[in-house]
Amino acid sequence: VDEFDIIRRYFMPAVTRRADVVAGIGDDAALLSVPAGHELVVCTDTLVSGVHFPRHTPAAAIGHKALAVNLSDLAAMGAQPAWATLALTLPDADPRWLEDFAHGLLALAQRFDVELVGGDTTRGPLTVTVTAQGLVRHGMALRRRGARVGDRVYVTGTLGDAGLALRLQERASAHLQARLDYPEPRIEAGQALCGFATAAIDISDGLLADLAHLLASDRLGAIVEIDALPRSAAFLEVHETPGAGAQPAYYELPLSAGDDYELCFTVPPAHSTAVEQRLEHAGCAATAIGEITDTPGIRCVRANGSGYTPVARGFLHFGEDQHG
Amino acid sequence: VDEFDIIRRYFMPAVTRRADVVAGIGDDAALLSVPAGHELVVCTDTLVSGVHFPRHTPAAAIGHKALAVNLSDLAAMGAQPAWATLALTLPDADPRWLEDFAHGLLALAQRFDVELVGGDTTRGPLTVTVTAQGLVRHGMALRRRGARVGDRVYVTGTLGDAGLALRLQERASAHLQARLDYPEPRIEAGQALCGFATAAIDISDGLLADLAHLLASDRLGAIVEIDALPRSAAFLEVHETPGAGAQPAYYELPLSAGDDYELCFTVPPAHSTAVEQRLEHAGCAATAIGEITDTPGIRCVRANGSGYTPVARGFLHFGEDQHG
Repeated sequence: VDEFDIIRRYFMPAVTRRADVVAGIGDDAALLSVPAGHELVVCTDTLVSGVHFPRHTPAAAIGHKALAVNLSDLAAMGAQPAWATLALTLPDADPRWLEDFAHGLLALAQRFDVELVGGDTTRGPLTVTVTAQGLVRHGMALRRRGARVGDRVYVTGTLGDAGLALRLQERASAHLQARLDYPEPRIEAGQALCGFATAAIDISDGLLADLAHLLASDRLGAIVEIDALPRSAAFLEVHETPGAGAQPAYYELPLSAGDDYELCFTVPPAHSTAVEQRLEHAGCAATAIGEITDTPGIRCVRANGSGYTPVARGFLHFGEDQHG
Repeated sequence: VDEFDIIRRYFMPAVTRRADVVAGIGDDAALLSVPAGHELVVCTDTLVSGVHFPRHTPAAAIGHKALAVNLSDLAAMGAQPAWATLALTLPDADPRWLEDFAHGLLALAQRFDVELVGGDTTRGPLTVTVTAQGLVRHGMALRRRGARVGDRVYVTGTLGDAGLALRLQERASAHLQARLDYPEPRIEAGQALCGFATAAIDISDGLLADLAHLLASDRLGAIVEIDALPRSAAFLEVHETPGAGAQPAYYELPLSAGDDYELCFTVPPAHSTAVEQRLEHAGCAATAIGEITDTPGIRCVRANGSGYTPVARGFLHFGEDQHG
């Protein structure tokens, strides 16, 4: 099986044929039309086996997740997804694995009208890099910077599910496992926030780590109400509301576990109601979890007003856990 | 050293700041402006240590080559390079290695006015994926398809140098080694061919393999005059013009070795002189090596008119050498 056969057999048949793709897979490069009045939004993310997903992860989940983590970045910019390229490094060309992987990736691509326009397959340790491209109306993109003192801090969906699934391994419920394996990029939510949110980021490395990036762009701080963090019913089945000091995972996982791929964003108080309505219309839950302050750093507080010092800041590559 | 530090320290300081980059490294995604009247050209290529380059390859060469192989794809489309993203998977974060790698990549980027607009660094076996983006005037891109019977087949530069360097290893001359480690993307040549060449492809897997892809797009064939293949002085120092039947490497390396990253393209006879002049003006040598025929397949002939059957077709991933 050579490179061309792999691309042809597994990735060409499916997909969306977008009208703005002048040439897709099968030439030296793809040729694409960007509509007038729009900016191009580009991001790239790599998943390495054993680092970003456990080695026994189903191929369909790897395919889904490789695209989903990139669509999540597009969502954080408020972009409409359009095209993707796939760089797939494989130890061998197992047809069954490839079929499942392609199915997982292409099913998500189809849902968001993304065309796979190019790729490269190489032999080596399992590594998947997707580069995704989207479109946003000129000047309308959400950015990491832009938050202002007094803005409310929101997150979409629920936090800590993926981290809990990783921790529980084969004891994770189906819901928790699906949250880890099949993250849902918040595309509609991101678009609904354009023109209303002042700043946004997606939560890939944990709320504290990613909120810190957002805050660092403007040298701001935030208060996070850790009892208000949204937790799923599946999460609460494992970690009930704690008494004082009990169950650190109840706080730590929503604060610091990565892989949830929810959006974290800031909204001026005057826009809160409008934003909540727009997100409800987009079918996406959102929860106010805190407020932007002018004191750099993140201060975690409990409902009773007492402070909380997180144990870990979030997922860091190459290394050392840092206290935040 | 975390991911943000790596990107910030090694890849942010250098570079070109292009006016069409609204947001580069440091947000969830890059924001880019595509000028009116242009199409976007996108390609992606991965280099795996031990597969696409020997393990002892200098870091600067790996950085150069990771971008160069992508710019070569843009060249084959006649595009002007604009932006790139880098997905870098590393076993560890060795500062000296990263500095050299970044230097190799960014020096080439600067020469072609390419801005690095995003990236991802992950831990794992050394793998480098670059996605490059370029621009081409609407409808002017070179494609793989479009060749017609009677068109002349050309290649830029010289063939077989990189393959010879791989074969000679530490006995390779500096010129041959540089051809393997620092391939030169034929950007100016590709642009000079727009509107004149009928089809083009870059030679990454060997002339026979890549010409076969070009021909397959239109179900055509070609005669290749194997004594006319351009060979460098450094190549000829090792493999002199052979007598009958001697030195198969004299033919095999230019026909089948990969990694030269020259362009192969087709030109109607009426445009030959114009194309040769345009390429000379672009500072790029080009050699006519054959002709398009309507009989599918590639027929190799020697200067004395006798046929030649190549031993190998070119570099195939996952696999079996196939006779072409």
